[in-house]
This record gives sequence, C-alpha cells and structure tokens, in this order.
Amino acid sequence: MTKLRDKHHEFRIKTYEVIFGTDTPAGRYFDIALIYAILLSVAAVILDSVEAISKEYKLTFQTIEWFFTSLFTIEYIIRLYCCPKPWRYARSFYGLVDLLSVLPSYFALFITQANFLIIIRLFRVLRIFRILKLMRYLGEANILMRSILLSRRKIFVFLISVMVLVTIFGSLMYLIEGPQNGFTSIPKSIYWSIVTITTVGYGDITPQTILGQALSSLIMITGYAIIAVPTGIITAELAVELRREKVIHGCHNCGRAGHDRDAQHCKFCGAKLATHR
Amino acid sequence: MTKLRDKHHEFRIKTYEVIFGTDTPAGRYFDIALIYAILLSVAAVILDSVEAISKEYKLTFQTIEWFFTSLFTIEYIIRLYCCPKPWRYARSFYGLVDLLSVLPSYFALFITQANFLIIIRLFRVLRIFRILKLMRYLGEANILMRSILLSRRKIFVFLISVMVLVTIFGSLMYLIEGPQNGFTSIPKSIYWSIVTITTVGYGDITPQTILGQALSSLIMITGYAIIAVPTGIITAELAVELRREKVIHGCHNCGRAGHDRDAQHCKFCGAKLATHR
Amino acid sequence: MTKLRDKHHEFRIKTYEVIFGTDTPAGRYFDIALIYAILLSVAAVILDSVEAISKEYKLTFQTIEWFFTSLFTIEYIIRLYCCPKPWRYARSFYGLVDLLSVLPSYFALFITQANFLIIIRLFRVLRIFRILKLMRYLGEANILMRSILLSRRKIFVFLISVMVLVTIFGSLMYLIEGPQNGFTSIPKSIYWSIVTITTVGYGDITPQTILGQALSSLIMITGYAIIAVPTGIITAELAVELRREKVIHGCHNCGRAGHDRDAQHCKFCGAKLATHR
Amino acid sequence: MTKLRDKHHEFRIKTYEVIFGTDTPAGRYFDIALIYAILLSVAAVILDSVEAISKEYKLTFQTIEWFFTSLFTIEYIIRLYCCPKPWRYARSFYGLVDLLSVLPSYFALFITQANFLIIIRLFRVLRIFRILKLMRYLGEANILMRSILLSRRKIFVFLISVMVLVTIFGSLMYLIEGPQNGFTSIPKSIYWSIVTITTVGYGDITPQTILGQALSSLIMITGYAIIAVPTGIITAELAVELRREKVIHGCHNCGRAGHDRDAQHCKFCGAKLATHR
Repeated sequence: MTKLRDKHHEFRIKTYEVIFGTDTPAGRYFDIALIYAILLSVAAVILDSVEAISKEYKLTFQTIEWFFTSLFTIEYIIRLYCCPKPWRYARSFYGLVDLLSVLPSYFALFITQANFLIIIRLFRVLRIFRILKLMRYLGEANILMRSILLSRRKIFVFLISVMVLVTIFGSLMYLIEGPQNGFTSIPKSIYWSIVTITTVGYGDITPQTILGQALSSLIMITGYAIIAVPTGIITAELAVELRREKVIHGCHNCGRAGHDRDAQHCKFCGAKLATHR
Repeated sequence: MTKLRDKHHEFRIKTYEVIFGTDTPAGRYFDIALIYAILLSVAAVILDSVEAISKEYKLTFQTIEWFFTSLFTIEYIIRLYCCPKPWRYARSFYGLVDLLSVLPSYFALFITQANFLIIIRLFRVLRIFRILKLMRYLGEANILMRSILLSRRKIFVFLISVMVLVTIFGSLMYLIEGPQNGFTSIPKSIYWSIVTITTVGYGDITPQTILGQALSSLIMITGYAIIAVPTGIITAELAVELRREKVIHGCHNCGRAGHDRDAQHCKFCGAKLATHR
Repeated sequence: MTKLRDKHHEFRIKTYEVIFGTDTPAGRYFDIALIYAILLSVAAVILDSVEAISKEYKLTFQTIEWFFTSLFTIEYIIRLYCCPKPWRYARSFYGLVDLLSVLPSYFALFITQANFLIIIRLFRVLRIFRILKLMRYLGEANILMRSILLSRRKIFVFLISVMVLVTIFGSLMYLIEGPQNGFTSIPKSIYWSIVTITTVGYGDITPQTILGQALSSLIMITGYAIIAVPTGIITAELAVELRREKVIHGCHNCGRAGHDRDAQHCKFCGAKLATHR
Repeated sequence: MTKLRDKHHEFRIKTYEVIFGTDTPAGRYFDIALIYAILLSVAAVILDSVEAISKEYKLTFQTIEWFFTSLFTIEYIIRLYCCPKPWRYARSFYGLVDLLSVLPSYFALFITQANFLIIIRLFRVLRIFRILKLMRYLGEANILMRSILLSRRKIFVFLISVMVLVTIFGSLMYLIEGPQNGFTSIPKSIYWSIVTITTVGYGDITPQTILGQALSSLIMITGYAIIAVPTGIITAELAVELRREKVIHGCHNCGRAGHDRDAQHCKFCGAKLATHR
C-alpha cells in the first residue's frame, strides 16, 4: 500500500517536473510543444474571424477548436493534479490565464445569442498570454523584465506628466479649432493630442487654423523631444543590469568573474566557460 | 492673551504642515485627497464639453463645479492664512496656478457673452497643472527633472538646429510643390516639415511631384536619424544621475555606500537598508 | 610544365586577392568599381519600372541590362575560378546572392508570359544585397553588426512580447469597433495595431467609437513607451563595444592601449597613432 | 603717416574683435543683434509668402527687405575689410552663406520673369543658416557636433543599410500591390517604404492586399526596431564626450579634476569652481 502511494507520489513529482519545470529535457520539450499548440489555436481563432475563410471551413475550425480546448483542459487538470499547492496555482495570474483559455469554449455551448457568442469566442485569443509565461525561462526576458520593473516608478511619473500635457494641449486645441474642424469635444481633442504627441499621426483629425497648426507644431516637437525620457530611463537601467550580468558570469574553474559576455574561455585560466546565453 | 496667541500660532504651524508638508501622514493624506479632487473636477470639465452628456446632466455639472470651486477657494484661503509669507506664495508659480484654478468660475458669473463664457470656463482645465506640484515629493520626479534641467541647454541647441532645418526644408518644398499641391505658403510648408521631421505624418498635405517626394524622403530620414540626439542627451544625463543616486544611498548601520538600488541588505554589514524608493 | 602550373597558381592567388581581398589597393579599387556597377544596374532596374521612362528608352535599358548581366556573369565565373574552394563559395550566402543577381536576366529569355516576366526581371533588384557584402571591410559595420548579434536574443524576446500585445489589442479592437468601422477581421485589426504601436499611423483605418479611441490611446502610449526597450538594448551593447574598441586600439610604438578614439598621438610616448577609422 | 597707419591697423583689429570675436562684450552684443536681424529678415520672407498678408503690406515688406539687404551688405563689406585674410573668408562655407544672404535681393532687380523672381527671392531664406554659425560659441553645440562627427561613419553605414532595405522592400511591394493600389513604380514604392520605415506614415499610399499588409507590418516592425541603432550610436558617443567634459573641468585652486557637472565648489579644497556652462 505504502509502495503504491510512494510510486504515485513519485509519478506526481515527475509529472510536475515535466509540466512546470524547464530544467529537464522532457520539461523543455513539453514547453515547446505547448507553445506550438497555443500558437496554432490562436491562429485558428484569428483566421476564423475572416468571413471568407470562416464560411468555407466552418467544420474544420470547430474541430480544431474542440481539439485544442480538450488538450488545454486535460493540461489544466494535470497541472492541478501534480501541483503541490493546487489552490495557489489556480489563483495565481498564470493559473487564471490557463483557466481563461479554456472557459470561453465551454461557455459558448450555453449561449444562444449570436452577438454575445462572438464576444465569448474571441476571448479565446487571450490564450496568447500563456506564451509570456513560457518565455520566463529565457534569461533575456528576465533582464528586460527587471529593468522595466526597476524603472516602473520613473515611467509612471513620465506617463503622468504626458497625461497632464495632453489634457492641457487637448483643451487648448478644442478652444482654438472648435467643433467645426473636427475637435468636437475635449475627450476627442485629448485623443487627437495623444495621436500627435506619440507621433502616430493618423490624420483623421487635423488642425485647420493657423493658430491650431502652430500649437500642433509645438505639441509634435514636445513629443519628439520627450520620447527621449522613457528611452533614457530604460537604457540607463539596462546598462546597469548588463554590467551586473557580466560581473556574475564567473569561471567554473578558477572562480574569477568579469568575463565579457561573448567570451568562450576564461581569460585567467583558459577553461571553457559555461554557455550562459 | 499670549497663550491664545501661542495656541493660534501653533495651530497655524500644524495647518501648514498638513497643507504644505509631505512628511507627516496627515500631510500625505491631504495631498492624496487633493489629487483626487483635482482629477474629479478636471474630469467634470472634460465631460462637460461633450455635448450629449452636457445637455443631459447640466445641473449635475453645475453642482459639481461649484462644489469644487468652493473647496479650492477654501483651500486657497487656508494656504494664504497658514503660510508664513503669504505674499511670496501668492506670487509663486504654483500660487498663481492655485488662484487660476478658481478664478474662471467666478469670472463666469459676470460674463453674459456665451462665446467668451466657454473660453473662461475651459480655463478651469488648467487645474491639472496642480498635479505636477503634488508630484514633487516623488523622488523619481526629482531625478527626471534634474536630468532634464542639466541637459536643457543641449536640448535648446538641438531644437534651434531643428528649427533651422525645418525652415529651409519648408521653403524648398514650397518652391518645389507650390500652392497647387497644398503647400500654399511657407508657414504652411514649415508646418508640413515639422509634421514630417517629427515622424508624425498626418497626411493632410503630401508631396505630389517626384522631386518633392525625393526631398521628403531626405527629410524623413533626417528626422529618423536626429531623433537620436535628444535621446542620447537625456540618456547620458540620466545615467550620471542614476549612478549618483546609487552612491548616495548609504547603509544606516556601517555608513558605507555603493549598494545596488534593489539591495535590501547592506553588502558590508548585512543590516537592513532603509527602503529609499 | 611545373613552372607553368606554378605561374597559373600564382595568377589564381593574385586574382583571388583582387576580387575577394580588401587589403591590397587593387582589391579596394575592384570593390569600389563593383559598388558603382551594382548601384548603376539597380538604378536601371528601378527607372525601368517608371512607365513613362521605360517606354521612351526601351532599347537603352535592354543594352544596360545585358551589359551588367555579362559583367556580373564574368565576375561570378572568375570568382568560382580563383576561389580555393569554389563549391563552398557557391553555397555561401553571398555566393548565392552573386548567382541570383545574374540568373533572372537569363531566365527572362525563356519566359514568354508577360506577367511572370515582370516578376522575374524585378528580382534583379536583389543585387543590391551585394552592397552589404562589400561593406564588410568597414570597421564600423562590424561594430554595429556585433552589437546587433549580441543583442539578437533580447530583441527577439522584445518582438515576441510586441506580437502578443498586438494580437490582444487587435482582437479587442475588432470586438469594440467591428466591421462597420473598417476593422473587418482580426488579421486586419492586428495590422492596424502594428500600424499604431509602431507610431506609423497611416490613418487608412481609424477608431470611430469613444471606447475604441480610448483603447487606441492606450496602444499609442504603450508603443511610445516600449520603443525605449530596443533602443536601450542596442545602446547598452554598443557602449560595451565602443569601450572595447578603445581598449584594443593600441600604440604601434610602445604597445600601450587605452587611447581615446580621436587621439592622433600616443598619450604615453607621443608616437603618431595609426588612423584606425 | 605711420601713426595713422597704426591707428588704422588698430581700428581694423578692434572691428575684427567685435564682428568675428565672441570673447569681448561688444563681440557678444554684435552677435546677438545679428541673430535678431537675421530672424526678423527671415520672418519677413516667410510672411511675405502668405498671399493674404503679402497683398496687404506689399510696400512694408519691400522696405523691410531693402533695409536688411543694406544692413547685411554693409556687414559683409566690413567683414571683408577687417578680416586679415579676406579671400580665405570669402571662400569659406560661412563666407559664402554671408554672400548668398544678400545676393538674391540684388539679382531680383535684374529679373523680369515673375516665375524665376519668386525662386530667387525665396533663396533669401537661406540666411537662416547664419544662425548656425553664431551658435558656435555655445559649448553645448560643440559637444553635440563632436559626438555627431565622431559617429558620422557609423551613421553612414546605418543609412546605407536602411537604403538597401528600403530598395528591396519597395520593389517587393511594387510586385505585390502593383499600380492599381497606388504603387505605380519602384521609385514611388521606395518613397512609400521610406515613409513607412521611418514611422512617418502619411497614408497617401497604403497597402490594400493581405500580403501587402503583412509585408508592411514587417517593414514597420523593422523600422521600429532599427531606430534604436542611430540612437545607440549617438548615445554611446555622447556618454564618452560628457565623461571627458567632466574630467577636463578642473579646480582653479588645487588643480584636481573629476567634479560633477553641477558642482559649485571643489570637492577637495572647497574653492568656488568656475561656472563652465
């Protein structure tokens, strides 16, 4: 009896390593297979939205959909089964994303209203968020993420300043151009300000008066100059992270660090360095 | 009598700490409450400009407006009362912004001309400038502000160069394309040049001749290459600021500095570091 | 007999040095002449596509075309002849590009279908890729290339994240705006998302609903903020490369390194430094 | 006689100091007055191109024009007179710009053809180039200029690569979209490619086919990613320049260097530092 339980326990741990882990070959293969499954299922949802394709291959898309839904449902159940703390996983961000990637298909069964059905089915596209989880094991993603996390407060302050600028510019343009030139309300003018300051520039609303064009020029140049701020923030943080990465990367033979990131041999003892990246 | 005066004096100082200070909990709560009040009142002004909403809820918006005007008027009077040098505060940039955020509503009472009334009432949106004042207590805002201040002369030189380029490109395009293709005057051509060099690209005016398209291509590539300049300036300054921030951040136990910005313990004595950020 | 073979062998080596090498003056002149030949032949292909010009100078273009095709064919044969490992060269990337730059003209002889003929002839424009090969001997190109190669994984992670964002934003906009506002399918919505997040902003499809404009604003600001990420990556890598370049650049007299990149004399012994750049 | 010559010589040197120099107060005042004169005369040329204004104030503009032309002519003659090597000045870049800023007005006297007259008169706008010369005495302009000069070869390599990419993308789009969707020739397709890769995005030509939109997405993302390259180049160079600026900036009392750029006192001996910037 204990032996069976032990064996069962061992099986759960092994499954856990394959499904959650990224260190074993099996774990890596599982992740790669999962990435392809997610991409294919999202591609199916996307193609299904093209009317011409959707009409032609209705049955094919339904089959694909139920195949992937079953697959992800089984995967979700196995994750719950082999996880030591299933409840914690289920409530975590990625646990919720995993659940949300299968729920819409089941909900769709109980809904008869065509309009709502489309919305529910589109939520399946959120599966693509799962790709982000699987990228975690790339060292590069961690460095990028850490730089962004470290500079999140600076970027927040920057975004607030942009918001204040955009509100004021939008209101001024509403005053100057007015509804007759497409600036029908302050919210719309603020939308236009954002389109302009981020240098997107759709051209669906454009200033017609001379004063409006002068102010627009000011907004554009402001946008052009202040785009430097987030870039500067991220660059400065990344430079710190990259320098640290270099310092950590030590030789396995003599233990001394400070090797360049493209070095293949230790510059002190000549031993082959572990390929970190 | 003296006791009363002392008590009064003490009360003024306490009020000052709450309203102007950011170090005490009360001061912080006051600032946060003020930020919400400002955002709500600005949101009301913005929504009021949407005709459909404005017609429906006319009375609601008037009530909201007078509620916030009263609130900010009282706040302004208290600020004048508790400030040791009221006249200096009143003439300062933020003092003027505080005053300007209530004046339009009172002016609006004495104005009967509809057109002018709209303009006056829109000035209430300038209240959002007060948000910037309240951001001062964020350390991040200071670092960003200092980097921008230190590089203001370089950015000024850069902007002058852009202006010279834009004037010459605009005049050339006026010559090449002429009024028949939308380049009706040099100011308009300069406006188009700014739209192009900042990579906004509305598309309301576009070159039609081959020569014009060739010159536009040159302008775009110039804009694409020189956007690097402000970015480089800000980045280089920020990198210096960030390095200094790291050096300053010393351990409270052993006094030694040089800790990484995400360090939680002193790397020399292991003491818990004060959470600076 | 051996003497003849030796002479022949010597001739092959000399030809190799001229055609493949960049160290001898002859090798450099050959490369520069080749660059002009490539640019002229590509310019001819490009001008040939302008209907008005093409009709007028049909014969001229045919003559130019066959002149350059012969030239590049001879060059290709000489390359095969003088290369020590001809097969290896023929299969290399640049060997294939060299072959592809002459093949379309010969294929065009056997094709009678007008439509397909145009396509085949346009492939001649790919010759311009050969310019990239000839840029290899510029030290700057190597530094830039190495920075980009070193950061290719980080840029890959960044692009995947952008793709995930763009898919989700596109699907949401398809839901919000729907086919009646130009968002006819998810692929088209994703196309619009890319146009917006990269701040291109054609304006061929623009959001019409208030919710759509609000979400667009979010996408634009996201794009505006995350453009900082690739910039930060490249800048940080380039800074490392530039610092290394400085360290390598040693004095030919005393051997000591660490000179500034614009130094003309060794700062230790005063000897004239080799002009490296 | 010698005395008179000496006095005359002295006068020439003094005039030279005022007109060419920037170290004496008189030299500075002269430069500032000149900047205003240039800006006003350019503003007059620009406003003169607006038809409504030009018609109304024809005489005023003519008076202004001749006033500034006389002023700049006198200035040019004085420059020639007081310069030790007049011929060298006359042939220098800025000497030619100085001459070109007065010539068009005189040429206009001899021209009767209206069309050509407009062109000649517009060349007066080139006067604005003189502003660049007067900016030389700003330390910031020198640092920026040096960074750009040091990285000019890298930026050149980058621009060539962009050109190659743009030619290939343009030809492919011409193949895919064809004349019926606005891509009437390869030059026009290349123009569209530049509009897209620099993220300008006018929207005057947009891809209509699915394949075209897919390729456009690729071009946009390429443009979005490679804008990082010039930024990285300039930033890395600027960082080096800024560090050198810091090192040079030494204390006048103890001679030790390494002070921060916003330091007001020497950190070693406490002496007041010269305000360098």
